[in-house]
Amino acid sequence: MTGFSFQVESRDGAARTGIISTPRGEIRTPAFMPVGTAGTVKAMFPEDVAATGADILLGNTYHLMLRPGAERVAALGGLHKFMNWPHPILTDSGGYQVMSLSSLRKLTEEGVSFASHIDGSRHMLTPERSIEIQCLLGADIQMQLDECPAIPIAPDKAAESMRLSLRWAERSKRAFEEKSKPGQALFGIVQGANFEALRRESLERLQEIGFPGYSIGGLAVGEGREEMFRVLDFTTPHMDRDKPRYLMGVGKPGDIVGAVVRGVDMFDCVLPTRAGRHGQAWTPSGALNITNARFAQDETPLDPLSACPASRDYSKAYLHHLFKAGEYLGAMLLTWHNLHYYQQLMASLREAIAAGRLADFVAAFRAQTGEETL
Amino acid sequence: MTGFSFQVESRDGAARTGIISTPRGEIRTPAFMPVGTAGTVKAMFPEDVAATGADILLGNTYHLMLRPGAERVAALGGLHKFMNWPHPILTDSGGYQVMSLSSLRKLTEEGVSFASHIDGSRHMLTPERSIEIQCLLGADIQMQLDECPAIPIAPDKAAESMRLSLRWAERSKRAFEEKSKPGQALFGIVQGANFEALRRESLERLQEIGFPGYSIGGLAVGEGREEMFRVLDFTTPHMDRDKPRYLMGVGKPGDIVGAVVRGVDMFDCVLPTRAGRHGQAWTPSGALNITNARFAQDETPLDPLSACPASRDYSKAYLHHLFKAGEYLGAMLLTWHNLHYYQQLMASLREAIAAGRLADFVAAFRAQTGEETL
Repeated sequence: MTGFSFQVESRDGAARTGIISTPRGEIRTPAFMPVGTAGTVKAMFPEDVAATGADILLGNTYHLMLRPGAERVAALGGLHKFMNWPHPILTDSGGYQVMSLSSLRKLTEEGVSFASHIDGSRHMLTPERSIEIQCLLGADIQMQLDECPAIPIAPDKAAESMRLSLRWAERSKRAFEEKSKPGQALFGIVQGANFEALRRESLERLQEIGFPGYSIGGLAVGEGREEMFRVLDFTTPHMDRDKPRYLMGVGKPGDIVGAVVRGVDMFDCVLPTRAGRHGQAWTPSGALNITNARFAQDETPLDPLSACPASRDYSKAYLHHLFKAGEYLGAMLLTWHNLHYYQQLMASLREAIAAGRLADFVAAFRAQTGEETL
Repeated sequence: MTGFSFQVESRDGAARTGIISTPRGEIRTPAFMPVGTAGTVKAMFPEDVAATGADILLGNTYHLMLRPGAERVAALGGLHKFMNWPHPILTDSGGYQVMSLSSLRKLTEEGVSFASHIDGSRHMLTPERSIEIQCLLGADIQMQLDECPAIPIAPDKAAESMRLSLRWAERSKRAFEEKSKPGQALFGIVQGANFEALRRESLERLQEIGFPGYSIGGLAVGEGREEMFRVLDFTTPHMDRDKPRYLMGVGKPGDIVGAVVRGVDMFDCVLPTRAGRHGQAWTPSGALNITNARFAQDETPLDPLSACPASRDYSKAYLHHLFKAGEYLGAMLLTWHNLHYYQQLMASLREAIAAGRLADFVAAFRAQTGEETL
């Protein structure tokens, strides 16, 4: 049983490929992590998720602590066994979803108290409890509790929030050192909204505390792609070159391409799964909505040359019909297709970086998709 | 390309095993046909349906004629291609679902006019149009249009309805001879409610018209298992020994076992799929409801020795959680499990008949499940 480690394998500009090693397996970076909110990547069998090329999933602490409960998952052998996913799992801290989903929230130095969106029950999430939950779940990569304010925010508010997250980072690390098992890793989360000085302060303080990997939080919260890239431009160059960088909650394919160019190694987003359930499919030439009437008689599949059955073996007319009829199989096929598309994108990015031709890849991606701000 | 044929391979009492041959493949009988109402077996990938052991699916004419429309399915290459199911398909005539699902129905000698339950549009289903639709879909085994009254019904009403179905049988056969392709088959449907004389009259008249297979309609409409078996007892002995017998819309595992004992070869029912979506799972010791609180901490799978991943690789506690959280994967796994259970039951019945030990199998089934009226 090896520990947690990260090895950069190749570089092209700021971008890099690498391998994160964990006791549960290796993660090829840049990596996209499908989101398994409540212990399942919605509408997917876990074997099919793995077959798309996903090396790691994300689980949501907030959802799992409320239902079925962290102690119950632990009693049942941990999250990997519970959801039949033997590969690595990363969990968030729960903080972001407490703020976006629960009610009657009260944020203090100690943590956040809130009422469950499921049954109204009262809970308290502290840095220590968040780590305890993540350890009960058995997550291979864990996140410190942080506060994640929206942009725009006033500089003094952003600074105050960022410094609270730093104090929580220290408490999280202490709790992790007590509770975690060998080979598990805790990431610190860089905050500071879109202010360069605050991001630098956050990063430097986290580096002093010391983590085996760093997340970039507080982006993809409405600031727009250009602003997000601007923040990355003054953040990633200062991050440790030999540690993984995880941009939380990102994003659209164009967001990911631009962030990889800027040196990010890990991503998660509900977009491919959520959009798939609503009839949106990514294709090499951009996104389409299968419920559009123009697909009702379209005999062609989403991608006739794909290795993914969902992309290859069903016509757009059939997918259109499934969504019009409200059939499960529509969500199942488009989710699968989208996850495969995302993993193919990551594989292409890794190949392009390894071959030193990332600029060419980005130019081709821009031309094919019409994405401009990369 | 061979035509349609049926070969009995072994007999045990009234029960038999056999092979229905069609240009699209062989069907091992006794056969259970999963229901693919709207061009999909709900919550299942077609490859997984086939892998459970299903040789043939049932498609619903009523649903498909309304959405996406028979002419559209034909323009897209037929139902097999549309739904990515290259194996045999049987379609019903649409008559039963017109009567149970649509509104503003008007039944005449000509056929049934009705309003779509989807958009209220007006349609007319005649014997000729039903066959035309089934041929447009490309069904390998087709059903005559019939009327299917509920039990109890007065004898004169039952006789009148049965004779209308006979006249429709003749018209269906003429239309089928005009529209069908080589290798496709049309079944006549025996009606007559629970009256022996009417069932005999229906069967004899259908035999005069002549069909390559016969369905038993008008059962499983509320009469109860004992009464259904009583009707089979005075019906199946008079049916052609060398032609397949299809008991429509049946049923629970115990219904199927009892009907196989009485010489039935083919079955279809929404029960394993519909119940699966609602958290009900069949196991060797009977049905259970996974949403029951007693499963919340049950680490055991539905069947640790099963060849089906859905039955073997997920704990009852996890399945319980998926249903409590309203996750797609719950319906996907329990549907898969139930279809696998049903196909295993059919395989066991075929093996028992071939080995001449059906009585022993039935006794063991009765003991294990607690089913009494077999």
